[in-house]
Amino acid sequence: MTTSGATDVQRLLGVALPIIQAPMAGGPDTPALAAAVSNAGGLGSLGCAYLTPEKIDAVVADVRQRTERPFALNLFIRADEPDDAAARERVLPPLGDFRRELGLPAEPGLAPPPPPFEAQLEAVLRARPRVFSFTFGAPTREVVAALQQERIVVVGTATSVDEAEALAALGVDAVCAQGAEAGGHRGTFLGRFEDALVGTMALVPQLVARVRVPVIAAGGIMDGGAIRAALALGAAAVQLGTAFLVCPEAGTAAPHREALASARRTVVTRAFSGRAARGIRNRFSDAFERLEAAPFPQQQRLTAELRAAAVAAGRTDLMQMWAGQAAPLVRAMPAAALVETLAREAGLA
Amino acid sequence: MTTSGATDVQRLLGVALPIIQAPMAGGPDTPALAAAVSNAGGLGSLGCAYLTPEKIDAVVADVRQRTERPFALNLFIRADEPDDAAARERVLPPLGDFRRELGLPAEPGLAPPPPPFEAQLEAVLRARPRVFSFTFGAPTREVVAALQQERIVVVGTATSVDEAEALAALGVDAVCAQGAEAGGHRGTFLGRFEDALVGTMALVPQLVARVRVPVIAAGGIMDGGAIRAALALGAAAVQLGTAFLVCPEAGTAAPHREALASARRTVVTRAFSGRAARGIRNRFSDAFERLEAAPFPQQQRLTAELRAAAVAAGRTDLMQMWAGQAAPLVRAMPAAALVETLAREAGLA
Repeated sequence: MTTSGATDVQRLLGVALPIIQAPMAGGPDTPALAAAVSNAGGLGSLGCAYLTPEKIDAVVADVRQRTERPFALNLFIRADEPDDAAARERVLPPLGDFRRELGLPAEPGLAPPPPPFEAQLEAVLRARPRVFSFTFGAPTREVVAALQQERIVVVGTATSVDEAEALAALGVDAVCAQGAEAGGHRGTFLGRFEDALVGTMALVPQLVARVRVPVIAAGGIMDGGAIRAALALGAAAVQLGTAFLVCPEAGTAAPHREALASARRTVVTRAFSGRAARGIRNRFSDAFERLEAAPFPQQQRLTAELRAAAVAAGRTDLMQMWAGQAAPLVRAMPAAALVETLAREAGLA
Repeated sequence: MTTSGATDVQRLLGVALPIIQAPMAGGPDTPALAAAVSNAGGLGSLGCAYLTPEKIDAVVADVRQRTERPFALNLFIRADEPDDAAARERVLPPLGDFRRELGLPAEPGLAPPPPPFEAQLEAVLRARPRVFSFTFGAPTREVVAALQQERIVVVGTATSVDEAEALAALGVDAVCAQGAEAGGHRGTFLGRFEDALVGTMALVPQLVARVRVPVIAAGGIMDGGAIRAALALGAAAVQLGTAFLVCPEAGTAAPHREALASARRTVVTRAFSGRAARGIRNRFSDAFERLEAAPFPQQQRLTAELRAAAVAAGRTDLMQMWAGQAAPLVRAMPAAALVETLAREAGLA
């Protein structure tokens, strides 16, 4: 799979190109997308954070029907906060208003919680992907060792030097440096997310200076020039999410897809899930600018039906539309063509 | 002055290296620092925002004693807000507490306002520096033309695509893309600064795609790897501030200098001047996290004595310490050695 001139990280990940399609749980990262990226020489990823163990088995089987090449599975290392009755009361008025606009009853139901992490981890161990990546926190040293025992490469997500050092101390095989530009959930697990919104240009060299494992750069990377930039900063590989959102293989909702090219303003908000995440600023995120959202996963569960209804109605003012800060640079093309274009522009192929 | 292989931007700026020392008004950017950078083949800058016209004449004469090479002068294009009596009442309690800690009477005096922009501009036109750069806003088209009439190259500062397009429409010769990583004042002048904290990795390629004039990358650049990264993103040159703060020629206060290497958390705050700026997070900035500061320049004037006393007492918990997000990568060496090191690392020399 790897070329003779493969770098350490390419050998580690089992890929010809140091290009990773970021896990994007909740719809965008379909088996078709991940497999297409892997077949093109990159590393496809599947975000399994919201999937039951049975569903993880199924998507893994689906990917393996489509490719024999390495891919990654990703989970949230959760620290779910308990439901908060006062928070529920606080967020009901704006949620009720928005629900009525969408023709839903004002009172929201509570969607089921994400499946327990332990059962998800069992499914990952069964699946034995080449790579397991995680975000939101740090597992125990025993979990890392159990994965590595199955010859699974373990990649943690850091948004600060402190987090990268904590992950390295756990024995992870690589660290993904999530720059502040990145779309979707922030991985911050030590301290406040506001203190860990460090741009890729500043974050990557500091992590490279501080940890001995390979650093994967994420955040703001949309083309081959940015890939060359990340490698110049000392990154061993790059991870792109937003760039893949507009591939036909992605499960991105049509209105979200269309909104990316003109997404001049993104915001890091807890409005949609209760966890800080970067998306396109809209009326929904604005409603939670001064109103504190419920904790994760309560907010996610309280907003699930509303978010689905907003997508169905094409209401971009109320939809959850994760996006990185360079979203306007999206180029809609099949995933294989995008990987090939990125590699060519970056001088990698 | 320029090498035979000089790029367009090197010819424009009259320098051998596409490396600019950022203007850092208020102390750090001494004539000695700017001249050392220019003598080493980069472009030294002097922030003149707080200087009277007579003082601008004097620092320009001082620089010209030290170098015959091109340098830049920088001003704030101010939109001073009027003093706000309610804001004064709001900020007096924390300021009074901090002042008492420093042995000052609780009631702050009001330092003089910055000199009027028009008089500062007259001094710049008299001085005829090779380059005039500006931040905080956009001058009129007439001001840009008057500078260019004197054969002064005009560089504006943008923190978003919208701002870069506005500057290009005014006829500026180059745009400095100020990434969110950058230390010091944010240049944002269209919309809220919170919406224009775009990382360098995401900002530079979007500006390069949208404006025809050369783009200068700023924010998070501390070494030659980051310079190569910025050039890979399409930047024509780079501007570094924090990296120069620890040079012996800089006027940086000793406690500030020492705090940079361990500055793991910076924050964008209005606490010190009333304008959003990135610095090392401390007790003083924390006091204004939920309390709204007075507008610029009222807050700057109300805090002037306190800030000076904090420096004199070495109180880093109360000092203003501008810093970019990659501050821990500072390397203390003379400015000429730093420019030479940067050029060598970047493969420019």
